[in-house]
Amino acid sequence: MHPVDAAWDPRLASAADADEIARLLHDFNTEFDTPSPGAAVLAPRLRKLLTADETFAIVAGRPAVAVALVTLRPNVWYAGRVALLDEMYVVPDLRGRGIGSAVLDVMVATAAERGTDLIEINVDEPDVDAQRFYERHGFSGMDPGTGQRAFYYWRERLT
Amino acid sequence: MHPVDAAWDPRLASAADADEIARLLHDFNTEFDTPSPGAAVLAPRLRKLLTADETFAIVAGRPAVAVALVTLRPNVWYAGRVALLDEMYVVPDLRGRGIGSAVLDVMVATAAERGTDLIEINVDEPDVDAQRFYERHGFSGMDPGTGQRAFYYWRERLT
Repeated sequence: MHPVDAAWDPRLASAADADEIARLLHDFNTEFDTPSPGAAVLAPRLRKLLTADETFAIVAGRPAVAVALVTLRPNVWYAGRVALLDEMYVVPDLRGRGIGSAVLDVMVATAAERGTDLIEINVDEPDVDAQRFYERHGFSGMDPGTGQRAFYYWRERLT
Repeated sequence: MHPVDAAWDPRLASAADADEIARLLHDFNTEFDTPSPGAAVLAPRLRKLLTADETFAIVAGRPAVAVALVTLRPNVWYAGRVALLDEMYVVPDLRGRGIGSAVLDVMVATAAERGTDLIEINVDEPDVDAQRFYERHGFSGMDPGTGQRAFYYWRERLT
């Protein structure tokens, strides 16, 4: 992997970056055939989320070509908070240049500054490239005690 | 599975339940050889968490013999919040009586009342009993678009 060009300048996003992040997230879901409500719905949500302290985003490039979106929550096992990397995206044309690594490094440092004790990510089972990427950055897919992996389960339609 | 005895009375926990929940969570980790800071550390954390609105717990029995612990956070893809079932435990002697199902039902209803659009759980890969349990309750381990499962990844020691 090449050292990332300083011009990408990974940085903490503000509410002013909401439109660009919304576009990236919409493109992300479109690329992977996942439904998206569209950038016009995502942008006002992001503007609100990025002004509160439960969500932060790291972006790179002007205009933004990569984003990491993180939510924070409390957890009984830790004195600090737990962060979940909800989304991580680099535009297709610019992959393999270290931009994702640079964004991830800033994301981890930002989470630490905000009193986070643990960062979590859900990674698709067949996406071994992503698994290797996160393992290179200090993440593990195994329980330290049991050596077991865990699957992500979900339910919508709660009523 | 038997219909759960109404005497177990699954209900929303208050800060007054913190000591009993702390004991259950400590026993949970002890049973599964996972480190625990001890009930004396967990109890004051729970007292604080259960008075804020990012965490709720459902307990059953007096004294409590089962607990579900949930944290809520915002998410860009949903107008409402996303819930994560962080912990779910029934004491060993009382398993197989439907107490877990009753607690889970109340947990889902409580999450819905609190404006949750999605509930997430991480389930150990070899624990097919737990996977079936959650599938019976409407949870899925697969992405609806791709049919893929996802693994849980984590990192501590952020600096």
